[in-house]
Amino acid sequence: MEQESHYGGHGTTRPGGRTARVRSAVLRAAGDALAELGFAGLDLADVARRAGVGRTTVYRRWATPTGLVADLLTEMAEESLPRAETGSLLGDLRANARLVRRTLTDPRQGPLFKAVIAAATCDAATADALRRFYATRIAEWAPCVEQAVERGELPAGTDPHEVVRAVSAPLYYRLLASGDPLDEATADRAAEAAAAAAAAGIYVVRT
Amino acid sequence: MEQESHYGGHGTTRPGGRTARVRSAVLRAAGDALAELGFAGLDLADVARRAGVGRTTVYRRWATPTGLVADLLTEMAEESLPRAETGSLLGDLRANARLVRRTLTDPRQGPLFKAVIAAATCDAATADALRRFYATRIAEWAPCVEQAVERGELPAGTDPHEVVRAVSAPLYYRLLASGDPLDEATADRAAEAAAAAAAAGIYVVRT
Repeated sequence: MEQESHYGGHGTTRPGGRTARVRSAVLRAAGDALAELGFAGLDLADVARRAGVGRTTVYRRWATPTGLVADLLTEMAEESLPRAETGSLLGDLRANARLVRRTLTDPRQGPLFKAVIAAATCDAATADALRRFYATRIAEWAPCVEQAVERGELPAGTDPHEVVRAVSAPLYYRLLASGDPLDEATADRAAEAAAAAAAAGIYVVRT
Repeated sequence: MEQESHYGGHGTTRPGGRTARVRSAVLRAAGDALAELGFAGLDLADVARRAGVGRTTVYRRWATPTGLVADLLTEMAEESLPRAETGSLLGDLRANARLVRRTLTDPRQGPLFKAVIAAATCDAATADALRRFYATRIAEWAPCVEQAVERGELPAGTDPHEVVRAVSAPLYYRLLASGDPLDEATADRAAEAAAAAAAAGIYVVRT
């Protein structure tokens, strides 16, 4: 399960001694609290208790719930799993879509993403941290598209970031807006649609 | 501006006498409050004050902030503007994408949508009302796709709802998740991508 999760190893042993261990424990606890209670229920004292860490440590280092969420998103970006390399654009995009879908339907990560996105709608610092998270994640997967261009599967000048965004967009739309089911067929269709639109030249940068 | 807005006439004179006028004023005030303060700031007494209506009327009829948001979404669905009929699939989808984009970037409606979507992430009744709102809106635009199938622009068996969702998805993804700009070129690309994927048969229902 951990292997398959979108943003990887919250249980990973991290190098770097006590400071890193404290950060890891606190961010893990913050993620649990967000998934359970939502952003409105995120309380630094509660997170310290869950992490088994002194309150003052948490207040000194993260100061506010917003600061904690921003750091959690930074860690999620750092731990973003490496992209797939299946040898074909459709294979790579499908692997990406399935990973996003598994993450968003995961009993812990789904509510966690909803909580962070909800927090970002009313807090600029969180929105900024979220934007950086997606920028990192999109950059991680962009080479799938660049290689497809090199292989001649897609027209030259295709914007790789736009193709990667197109894969995620229908899944987030269902999670957050329309509420339609997020099954694997939906993920596969998102990958196929992005590949078809890219092949048709829709994402070629116009200069 | 009103003409162009996605979900239409919040200023419209509504038939039906005092009850309808009260509802209209209260929902208008609720929308203003949501846009300004977010869901967490939605307070029934404040909404009554803004609407110039007695508190007891508001408490009796809507009971909770959640009830108020659900009714606001019902009204937004009722007032959803009629779809475009440009004579071509791409023209229709582009009109739809531009309307969604104008709504989501509108200084009142953008924050209103963010507030409602954020509320839906942590409240099942609001999520349900939001789901019904999008179902109504998607059904309103589905005939654009049905007509394109009849005209032979798209393969038989194309799922019209899936194509309409595909147009909105990249715009909502930018608004809520990635934070990338929501310019008109993005809207046009969303329409073109949906049309290209549909033409490639991606949204044909597999039975």
